[in-house]
Parts: sequence; structure tokens; C-alpha cells
Amino acid sequence: MPIKTSPLAPSKLAVLPPIEGVRLGAAAAGIKYAGRTDLMAMVFDAQAAVAGVLTRSLCPSAPVDWCRANLPGGQARILVVNSGNANAFTGRKGADATALTAEMAAAVIGCPVSEVFLSSTGVIGEPLEAKKFDGVLQEVVHDANPDRWEDAARAIMTTDTFPKLATRTAEIDGVTVALNGIAKGSGMIAPDMATMLAYIVTDAPLSAAALQTLLTRHVDATFNAITVDSDTSTSDTVLAFATGAADVAAIKTAGDSRLAAFEAAFKDLMEDLALQIVRDGEGASKLMRIEVTGAQSDASARTIALAIANSPLVKTALAGGDANWGRIVMAVGKAGEPADRDRLAIRFGDLAAATDGERAPGYDEGAMSAYMKQDEITIGVDIGLGEGRFTAWGCDLTKDYVTINGDYRS
Amino acid sequence: MPIKTSPLAPSKLAVLPPIEGVRLGAAAAGIKYAGRTDLMAMVFDAQAAVAGVLTRSLCPSAPVDWCRANLPGGQARILVVNSGNANAFTGRKGADATALTAEMAAAVIGCPVSEVFLSSTGVIGEPLEAKKFDGVLQEVVHDANPDRWEDAARAIMTTDTFPKLATRTAEIDGVTVALNGIAKGSGMIAPDMATMLAYIVTDAPLSAAALQTLLTRHVDATFNAITVDSDTSTSDTVLAFATGAADVAAIKTAGDSRLAAFEAAFKDLMEDLALQIVRDGEGASKLMRIEVTGAQSDASARTIALAIANSPLVKTALAGGDANWGRIVMAVGKAGEPADRDRLAIRFGDLAAATDGERAPGYDEGAMSAYMKQDEITIGVDIGLGEGRFTAWGCDLTKDYVTINGDYRS
Repeated sequence: MPIKTSPLAPSKLAVLPPIEGVRLGAAAAGIKYAGRTDLMAMVFDAQAAVAGVLTRSLCPSAPVDWCRANLPGGQARILVVNSGNANAFTGRKGADATALTAEMAAAVIGCPVSEVFLSSTGVIGEPLEAKKFDGVLQEVVHDANPDRWEDAARAIMTTDTFPKLATRTAEIDGVTVALNGIAKGSGMIAPDMATMLAYIVTDAPLSAAALQTLLTRHVDATFNAITVDSDTSTSDTVLAFATGAADVAAIKTAGDSRLAAFEAAFKDLMEDLALQIVRDGEGASKLMRIEVTGAQSDASARTIALAIANSPLVKTALAGGDANWGRIVMAVGKAGEPADRDRLAIRFGDLAAATDGERAPGYDEGAMSAYMKQDEITIGVDIGLGEGRFTAWGCDLTKDYVTINGDYRS
Repeated sequence: MPIKTSPLAPSKLAVLPPIEGVRLGAAAAGIKYAGRTDLMAMVFDAQAAVAGVLTRSLCPSAPVDWCRANLPGGQARILVVNSGNANAFTGRKGADATALTAEMAAAVIGCPVSEVFLSSTGVIGEPLEAKKFDGVLQEVVHDANPDRWEDAARAIMTTDTFPKLATRTAEIDGVTVALNGIAKGSGMIAPDMATMLAYIVTDAPLSAAALQTLLTRHVDATFNAITVDSDTSTSDTVLAFATGAADVAAIKTAGDSRLAAFEAAFKDLMEDLALQIVRDGEGASKLMRIEVTGAQSDASARTIALAIANSPLVKTALAGGDANWGRIVMAVGKAGEPADRDRLAIRFGDLAAATDGERAPGYDEGAMSAYMKQDEITIGVDIGLGEGRFTAWGCDLTKDYVTINGDYRS
């Protein structure tokens, strides 16, 4: 499905520097796509600390089950990801395919299978022929090198229209450490982890526990604050790896005061990757940022923000460049959270649309229409009841979304 | 917005017979639309018993507030409905507009305002100029007659592509009583009452309490089992009226054993109207019936059924004629209800797609594709855990939905 690059894509791809202790490889295993790579490996020279957040779907894919079982060990030597087939809802055959893939990877690295991490993304319900990885996987590991971040990001794409890459640095004890991340995701994106895959690597010497704490702490405001279509995938996976190769004394807990700058960079990288995913929302032509304030609690603000972001009527209005604040009222009303119609204030960018339960005085349709023509729209909703706030990101619903998803299997 | 009639529309409109004690009128008040009626009145010759179910939106429209205040009185002399403007999120002006409309209606009938029921449907957030009803409303009441059911149903349409009409009869004590219903709704349709309006009238002599019990009992499996876009309206209203003109002794409670046949007809009529609404789902080209069985409870089955019915990925697959059962697994997984991937069975019509956590043996893509070309698709999902069941109805998500809703205000 050769789809044009999203109009919301970054103007240029980030170039990721090498990170000591990790090498990347990619190749074509012929799972589903012709003429492109579909197998990626991230190889760690020594055991890296690993942390992860996985889909909350009650019907998770076999590789999600695999990662969930291995995460408590906290150590990784290799990550293997294929695109084209999600190995989800494939029953016993699915578990066999992950086991076989892990055994091949463990054999080529010379590590226990408990240090192998796996993801698969693509069509659900088709058996994954893991035998196709034989030979190709060994080659991918053999050819892996520290510079192939973009190749790696391209190999895990499905309906993505651009590879997702981000990099940051931070200082710990006067030493500069690096953070790189790659991600994929375009449809079936919803809070609570949708078909998004994201992998973050740093050379900072964090323990698995410290890494897990940081990841868990920031996932709600980043990867769990984006939505394309409210559909939660069976395969969502965010993994973070720390090679520990930087010349910094070991960091055992997230409470270590030396982590302040690192944590800020880590969160910023997560947000960058998350936003790239929503920018590649299937068929998206506009990015919407929804800032809910004044709710009774942050949780309440989150529910309201996501009700707005997921409303087909809000999303189609956005596609039409229509500042249809009535539909925003509707979405607030359906969220089921405390709200008082007569205190609600709604703005698009800085332009007030409604205040105190009715159209804002001085509402200017011309100025509003001009604003709505932009690529990135901020919708501000003040509930007027409390201090709760949450920011979510979504995109519009266009005919292209229907085209992409009406033809996906064929 | 002259849109072609839904391909799922009934092949012919039901012709509704007169019901003793009620007359109907319609006219053009010029609220928004040119060249069509937009004001409807249902006039009761004497006080009719009235019952109702109203939107659970926390930001309801002014007429919903009005009905909620009057329902405890249990008596109606007139129902006035306008299309083109929902009088929702219109603040103090909205409440003033309903009060003014009610006063005009009460004056022409000669009844207290507590016996006036009101609905408005259309654009949200624009002040409703109720003064425009002056003169027109009096004329509508004056010209009302027992035969104008279709005119009434047409006057309340917004993005509807056909008027929704249904009629039934039932025997009580050997006397045939009649039930007529009209409805509107096409978008912003979701469980818990979406922008649907439905009005049911019978000549059976039910008390308001008996009528309310029957309405509440059956609304979950009918009007609350349909969804077009998961968007709950601020204006949803279902009202039932009993003129009591039939020659039957008064029925005070829903427990009256004489009601058995009536109750069956009443529920059947509700289902008929509800299905007509989903058949007119904005842009719909296929009707989907989702039968969930084997869930841990009926409530759990309902949540799962609606997660499937509302999933954009399931809906776009349906539009594409794609029996994409992987997306159904995804929707089951995201519903958050007890489910075991390895016990799930999914069928389209009578064709098994998946059993025991993987693709069904003997899955026949050709037969499946042929089935998926039909207008009405049944998706059966057995959770394999218990006895809970629920049937929901939805429709596909097409480019026309995006077109209709991207241009609605303009």
C-alpha cells in the first residue's frame, strides 16, 4: 500500500548517533511485503538493563506474552522485531513461532532465551512462519552496526508513511549520555498502548528498576496520551534499554538525584516519538492538541480529553476545517465526567468559541476559519470546576483513513 | 444537504393509521432549512399519559431539561419539535427559547405549560429564535389531523435520508389497540441515547407509570443497542404517549396481565424504529448486527458488543467488505471485559472465521467474501466463558460519513 507521506511528517528525519553497546541490523525476510525490509534486530554487546510497558489488551499477541514473561529478568542481549505479521490471535502456533524465533536469536548471540525480546506488527490472525527468519536473522545480527538506526526504524513500519526517530543527550555527573529512540505506529493507536512499538536505548548505566520507574512515570503523558482511532492493539510495546557503556557510576534507583536532566530528556524523547506516531495517523491531515483544564481531577480531565480526541464527529469537523465547538460540548457531555454546561469554556488556539455556556461574545467566524486552516490545531476546554488538567493529542478523520482501512488486508 | 437515500432504507415507508385522540401537524418555520418543513406538533385531544427516556449527556439541551422537569407530571396535551437547531449549549437564551415555545403552545391549546413537551434537533450552540414559531405554531395546531404521520416524521429530519415510521397492533381484553411511532436520527447516534428522537403513541389506556415501566424495560435492547458513531447527543429523547381512547378498562401498572401482547408489540415497535435509525446511519452502506454470547454477564456482553460496533477499524473493514476478524479480536481485547483469547470464536453469518484462538479450520475466503458483499452482516462472537449475551446494531464507516460530517455546518 504505497501511501503518500503524511503532510504532518517532520520536515526532516532525525539523524541518530551511535550509542556505545548497541548495534542494529535489518533485512528482508519476505513475511508479507515485497521489496522492503521487514526484520530488525537490536543487538547489545553485553547485557543491557531493560524495562517495558505492554498493551493492556486482554487478547495480547504472542510476542507481548513473551516480553511480559522476560521483563522481570531485567536483562536483554537482543531485540528482534518483524513487520507484516503481528503474530496475534494465532493460538498455539503463535507461541511456537515466538519460541522458535527466540531460540534462533539466542543461538546466534549465545545467550539464554530469557534475554531475547520480541515484537511483531502487521496483520492479526495469520500464522507467522518464523522459519523464514532462519538464515536471515543470523545475517541481520552479523551485519548489525551502530549506525543503522534509520534502517531499523524503516524495517518495523507497517502503514507508517515515515520512519520515526528521535535523539537526545543529557549530562549525568558531568558526562554526556545519549538517548536514541525509534518507533512505529499509524493506525490502531489509542491510549493504553495501541499498535505502537517504541524502543529507546541509552548508554547511561541505569538499573532495570530505575528504567522501569521512569518509563512507567512518563508513559501516561506521552504514549498513552495519543490516539488515532481509539482502537487498542494487541501488540503495543514500549521497551527501554540501558547499555551502561557511559563512563558514569551505576544508577540503581529512579530516586537518584543525578538523574534529573536525564529524566527530562527521557520524557522529552518519549513525547517526541509519541507525537511522531500521531503525526502519522492513518489519513491524518491535521494534528489536534487537546488541552483540558479545570476538571475535577487529572483523571477526569484525561477522560474528557480522550472523549474529544476520539469523537468521530469532532475528528470529521477538524478534517473539514470546521471550528464546530458544539461537537466538543457533545463530547464533554458523553465523557460522563463532572461538567457543568454553563461553566464550560472552549477555545481554538487563542480564539474563544464559547464561554459560560454559550457562544463567546465577539466570536469571529472569519478569524476562526483562518485558524482552522492550519495543520496543527489546539483545542482548549476549561471545565470550570477544579484544578484537573490533561493534554491529549489526536488527528482528524479523513476519507483517506477509510480508504487505508477498507483495503488493508487486500 | 441533499444526500441520496440510504441504501439500507426500507423498500417502502410504513403507512400509519390514525390513532384516536391524537392529531399531527407540520409546517415550515424557516429555522435553518429552505423549502422544507421544520416544525412538528402532536396534539392530544385530552390529557395523554406520557413517559420518557432522555439523554444521559451531562450537557443536555434546553428542551431535554424541559422534558425532564415535566415528565413527573405524567400528562401531555402537546408535543412540539423543531429541526434545524438543537437549542443545545445556548445558555440562558436556550432556556428562554424553550419557555417561550412552551408558552405559545400552551396558549393555543389552553393547557398549563407543564403539559407541553418539547424537542429540538440540529446544530448545537446557535441560539434558537423561538419567535419564528409565532403564528406558524398556531397554524400547525389548527391544521393538525389524524393522518399526517409521515408529514410529522419528515418535519423532524436533519441529516436523515428517509422518514422513520412504524406501526403495530395488539389486543387487550379482546379489543385491538394501535401503536404508532416516528423517529429521527442518523448521526451522533450512540447507546445511552444519541441524537435520536422517537415518539410513540397508543390509544391503549395505560397510566404514565405503566408506560414508563415498559419504556425503561425495553430501551436497553432497542434504542440503547444501536450505534452509528459512538457520539452521544445532548438531545436524545424517546417519549411515549397513551391517549387512552381505546375502549378498554384503565391499566394502572405494567404488571397487569392484560398487557402481555401489548408489551410484545411495544418492544417490537421500539426495535423497528431503532433499526431504522441505524439503517440511516450517516454514510452507511452496510448494517451490522453483533451477537455476543458466552460472556460473563449480559452487561459484559453489551460492553464487548459496543466496542466492536464502535471500532473504526471494524467499521472500515466492513465498508471494504473485509471479514477482518483480527480487528474483532482487537475490539474484544480493548473492551476490558473478561475474555480468553484461546476460547474466542468468531463467525460472519454462519461462516466460522476463528475458533479456539486461531483461524477456523476450513476457513473459506471465497465463501466469506461472497457473504461480506451483502447489505446486512451478522458478526457472532462467542466469548466462551459464561451465559451473558447482548445484541447490538451498527453500521459501516464510509467516505460518505466523512463528507457528511466534514461539511455539516457549512
